[in-house]
Amino acid sequence: MIAPEESQGQPTTTAPFPNSKRVYVEGVIHKDMRVPMREIRLSDTKAMNGRIEPNEPVRVYDTSGPWGDENFDGNVEEGLPALRRKWIMDRGDVEEYDGRPVEPMDNGYLSGKHAEYASTAERNRLIEFPGLQRKPLRASAGHPVTQLWYARQGIITPEMEFISIRENMRRAKITDQANDIVRNDLDKQHAGTAQNATGQPGIFSRFPQRIPEEITAEFIRSEVAAGRAIIPANINHPELEPMIIGRNFLVKINANIGNSAVASSIDEEVEKMRWATKWGADNVMDLSTGKNIHATREWILRNSPVPIGTVPIYQALEKVNGKAEDLTWEIFRDTLIEQAEQGVDYFTIHAGVLLRFVPMTASRMTGIVSRGGSIMAKWCLAHHQESFLYTHWDDICEIMAKYDVSFSIGDGLRPGSIADANDEAQFGELKVQGELTKRAWSHGVQVMNEGPGHVPMHMIEENMAKQLEWCHGAPFYTLGPLTTDIAPGYDHITSGIGAAMIGWYGCAMLCYVTPKEHLGLPNRKDVKEGVITYKIAAHAADLAKGHPGAQYRDNALSKARFEFRWEDQFNLGLDPETSRDYHDETLPQDGAKTAHFCSMCGPHFCSMKISEDVRRYAAEQGLSEEEALEKGMEEKSQEFLEKGAEVYQKA
Amino acid sequence: MIAPEESQGQPTTTAPFPNSKRVYVEGVIHKDMRVPMREIRLSDTKAMNGRIEPNEPVRVYDTSGPWGDENFDGNVEEGLPALRRKWIMDRGDVEEYDGRPVEPMDNGYLSGKHAEYASTAERNRLIEFPGLQRKPLRASAGHPVTQLWYARQGIITPEMEFISIRENMRRAKITDQANDIVRNDLDKQHAGTAQNATGQPGIFSRFPQRIPEEITAEFIRSEVAAGRAIIPANINHPELEPMIIGRNFLVKINANIGNSAVASSIDEEVEKMRWATKWGADNVMDLSTGKNIHATREWILRNSPVPIGTVPIYQALEKVNGKAEDLTWEIFRDTLIEQAEQGVDYFTIHAGVLLRFVPMTASRMTGIVSRGGSIMAKWCLAHHQESFLYTHWDDICEIMAKYDVSFSIGDGLRPGSIADANDEAQFGELKVQGELTKRAWSHGVQVMNEGPGHVPMHMIEENMAKQLEWCHGAPFYTLGPLTTDIAPGYDHITSGIGAAMIGWYGCAMLCYVTPKEHLGLPNRKDVKEGVITYKIAAHAADLAKGHPGAQYRDNALSKARFEFRWEDQFNLGLDPETSRDYHDETLPQDGAKTAHFCSMCGPHFCSMKISEDVRRYAAEQGLSEEEALEKGMEEKSQEFLEKGAEVYQKA
Repeated sequence: MIAPEESQGQPTTTAPFPNSKRVYVEGVIHKDMRVPMREIRLSDTKAMNGRIEPNEPVRVYDTSGPWGDENFDGNVEEGLPALRRKWIMDRGDVEEYDGRPVEPMDNGYLSGKHAEYASTAERNRLIEFPGLQRKPLRASAGHPVTQLWYARQGIITPEMEFISIRENMRRAKITDQANDIVRNDLDKQHAGTAQNATGQPGIFSRFPQRIPEEITAEFIRSEVAAGRAIIPANINHPELEPMIIGRNFLVKINANIGNSAVASSIDEEVEKMRWATKWGADNVMDLSTGKNIHATREWILRNSPVPIGTVPIYQALEKVNGKAEDLTWEIFRDTLIEQAEQGVDYFTIHAGVLLRFVPMTASRMTGIVSRGGSIMAKWCLAHHQESFLYTHWDDICEIMAKYDVSFSIGDGLRPGSIADANDEAQFGELKVQGELTKRAWSHGVQVMNEGPGHVPMHMIEENMAKQLEWCHGAPFYTLGPLTTDIAPGYDHITSGIGAAMIGWYGCAMLCYVTPKEHLGLPNRKDVKEGVITYKIAAHAADLAKGHPGAQYRDNALSKARFEFRWEDQFNLGLDPETSRDYHDETLPQDGAKTAHFCSMCGPHFCSMKISEDVRRYAAEQGLSEEEALEKGMEEKSQEFLEKGAEVYQKA
Repeated sequence: MIAPEESQGQPTTTAPFPNSKRVYVEGVIHKDMRVPMREIRLSDTKAMNGRIEPNEPVRVYDTSGPWGDENFDGNVEEGLPALRRKWIMDRGDVEEYDGRPVEPMDNGYLSGKHAEYASTAERNRLIEFPGLQRKPLRASAGHPVTQLWYARQGIITPEMEFISIRENMRRAKITDQANDIVRNDLDKQHAGTAQNATGQPGIFSRFPQRIPEEITAEFIRSEVAAGRAIIPANINHPELEPMIIGRNFLVKINANIGNSAVASSIDEEVEKMRWATKWGADNVMDLSTGKNIHATREWILRNSPVPIGTVPIYQALEKVNGKAEDLTWEIFRDTLIEQAEQGVDYFTIHAGVLLRFVPMTASRMTGIVSRGGSIMAKWCLAHHQESFLYTHWDDICEIMAKYDVSFSIGDGLRPGSIADANDEAQFGELKVQGELTKRAWSHGVQVMNEGPGHVPMHMIEENMAKQLEWCHGAPFYTLGPLTTDIAPGYDHITSGIGAAMIGWYGCAMLCYVTPKEHLGLPNRKDVKEGVITYKIAAHAADLAKGHPGAQYRDNALSKARFEFRWEDQFNLGLDPETSRDYHDETLPQDGAKTAHFCSMCGPHFCSMKISEDVRRYAAEQGLSEEEALEKGMEEKSQEFLEKGAEVYQKA
């Protein structure tokens, strides 16, 4: 069951990032809390005057969980430690119970013969998660056990404090004696369009993000209470490290994994989850279909440090042998409980696909492209009834409130092509998503809304504006959007453009798209390419919004670049291995990584080196640059020519 | 000298695109004109009612020149046919002359020993372009021979008509008997923000692009006359197929190639030029440094169907052995004439780097990163004089007017990091670029302006706005911009985001960035990745602006996708090989490419298939969808269940 560590030319999942170590920041309100970050050590600056100036290590947000801690010696058969278990139990509002028995049907074994196979010892040894089986928890005190409910009661949960430390990064005013950090030049940052709570309106004043200078635990609480942010954290997924999704926080990304009837196996999917979180996926959705859905999910949940989302209708459909018209509320309800007991953190539910919207899609270029949406469309047509997801919405909310499963209200009628963007079917459903959002909130359930899809650049803004208005400020979670349809094989890029833009406008989470989109299932290489593209999009959006501290990593990397600290430049980037490999393709010698030039210009022709001379010149005069000009540089120019270091180094 | 046709796992340069052929559209004003396009043949649609419906072939803009014509049997030793020679001579305003003799220094051979080597027969056989050596042409009638001058006289040149046909694509009303095209559903397109000359102001009314429904030759002329667009077309580069750069036209992309002292050779660079134009580069800049600059450029020009740009100061610097302070106006002037006689179509000249701006860069995070900018900064500091590029601007204009070399006024002080974006040095230079633009226009010389660089998303708009205002509407030509600095190895993506956005805002040409940016010289694979990323950015911008016909290819591809015409989906994309390879990784069988499912969902679970059923249902009722709903679908639902095709096909 151990996945191949070395495959497709990629580094191993658990190999540490170069010059990096795991560090933990302790909580203040909750003293036993340890918030993980990755710290990148940097080399010293050799200043022009010969002085050696140390560079502070840089801390970055780390989604890899214990798998990214070089001192963690667990394995996927045991699963991760139950970080949140004590926090959950200490609240005193949950109970253990026996839970729903796992049935062969849950793994897609419907017939007698199938069931017989499913029960064999041989099969279990290969398929079932072998680690500790906890009894499920559920609410027991007559109120929801959701972060939304606690937030509304004014309670700052450990989850909220954990997140405040994570989001602040080095800006945290949390006492951190062992790693005291002093602000420096690298803290300088452009004002973003959503700079602070008291700031002037930005360019996009239609999207009034309000990001304070410091992200406090109380700010987290207030945003969750208002419904503007969610903390997906099922009480049965104690392994997860809490994170937040909301437009006043760092933009998050989601990676989809999951096997299908045609390809891939459980160990590949567990490995993809770990691989995706190594590179920075904040959330993972398990979109498995076909056999062993239940077992695959168990493996993933017990090993995942990030929230896991699913689309329960996929499994429900397997239980009725793929016949959409045979779906019933009872089967769906049973599936929700099955998955809630396992610990799924959010459910995509396409309850906005109403009967009256379905015919609107018949004249589309690409009809209905959402799997969940098309299943429900078929059900609605077959029964000529309103979707049972819609009619049973309050029942669904009651279940989710008991486990703190968040809604990701699906966009089953999202456009599947540029041609179909922003049409009446899409926006009809979005309005219903807004209605469902309010009803979920009344049950104390956390909500985000899913969005498109395929949208040309100039029509993206309308999506964000309408979602904000119609869905009452709940977080938006979009797939891309793809900004053109002409580049299959490159849809991570066509969609990365749209993702960065809508992230800037206020979209809270971006669902990644891999190069395989529309063509096949992503492998390790594709998952990494998708995650990194979306980390770029999310970070570009953080810079544009002006999230406090977001520019620090850019600044540190730019400084390293300007000072020819090649190793630091590689290590501060999202993908040190790839940047190093690219550099080494032309200049493989070790010496080239300390050289003050690179292969782009060659040793005789380095613009950065010339800039150094400009700076040295200004410094040697002992004058500010403007003063130097005023006092007459002409008399100094001869001196410069005699004394100035040679710009063009000898090769 | 023939470059390796098969390398780095990429297809050969001259291999035709699958199911594609070269077609030519004839001119109307100039009858002998043949405008090349690539035509992609599509398979038939098998409609639900069993009818076979043919799909019209799709024509796409083609930058590959004769190299992309399967009937062309030339080679790089002969160079391309002189397409424009007759047009140029027929104007009667140029003369042949002996031209400047090529000197060993032009190829970087400065010492006696070098010169001796440079003159050996052995060396010449390896290095010198062996094809026809034409005498250079220059203006002889006392007026500029620029497209700007002709446009101002009201003359529609053959170049202008050629471009009007190219830009219109299938929308052209040009008579084309052999390939009569009827408009169909695929012509439907979202209104862009710059829809038409009489349209309402778009979202970005600060960027008032005005794109008419039809791009006529007269429209081309008027845009060139106004300075809003340029046609880079040196009279000594008759091989080029004319193209236009302006914000009311399709967004163009430029690919940089060029050897350095450290890496790559002439044949590699010629091959990179052909490779880049195969994938869609509209322009190529030869940024060679080191030895054999003159010879490399000759090879490239004689084989290039697209305009070639250079940065002449690079070669001038080689002539003074790399000592910036030894540069003189005379050496630079001589280099301009050398390159103008060879046929370079546009020169990047960093004349806006004024002495007073240089000290502004000392406190930057990354100083001066432009090579040309830093050379001139060093010269200015060393001599404490204003740049000779600035003081000799009128002399430079006079030279360029004689050959129709266009200006690409350089941005020598562009930011090299997010931290330095939009600072006083950058904008100080931009204002001077505006002043220089006006002066060049007064000499009848065509102008575009170069722009950044590294800019976070929310600060991109300001760049476009200021350039439009300060540079009097001349075309803008930017490098990216990169929207974050944290992803070395992925800067094609960090910059593709910014490029798409600024293209939408009105930037006329986007200079590509490859994955190797900041790390090394791009190879074939990197050049292709950079070009395709920028084709995506440019096309996304065309859709957002609303260029007539831009959405046609998206529509055709989406229709193919929805109808499971896999081969058509591959072939309509920017990179058929890659998308086919990705598909085949999971489903390699030939049958899978006609199957109505794919590996993403598997055969039991296809949302597109369900959509087909929705459509069939509506169609079978013989009603519009809305009517069907009104008449009561309930009674029909049983029939649907009995008669409807199975959604879930058997594997």
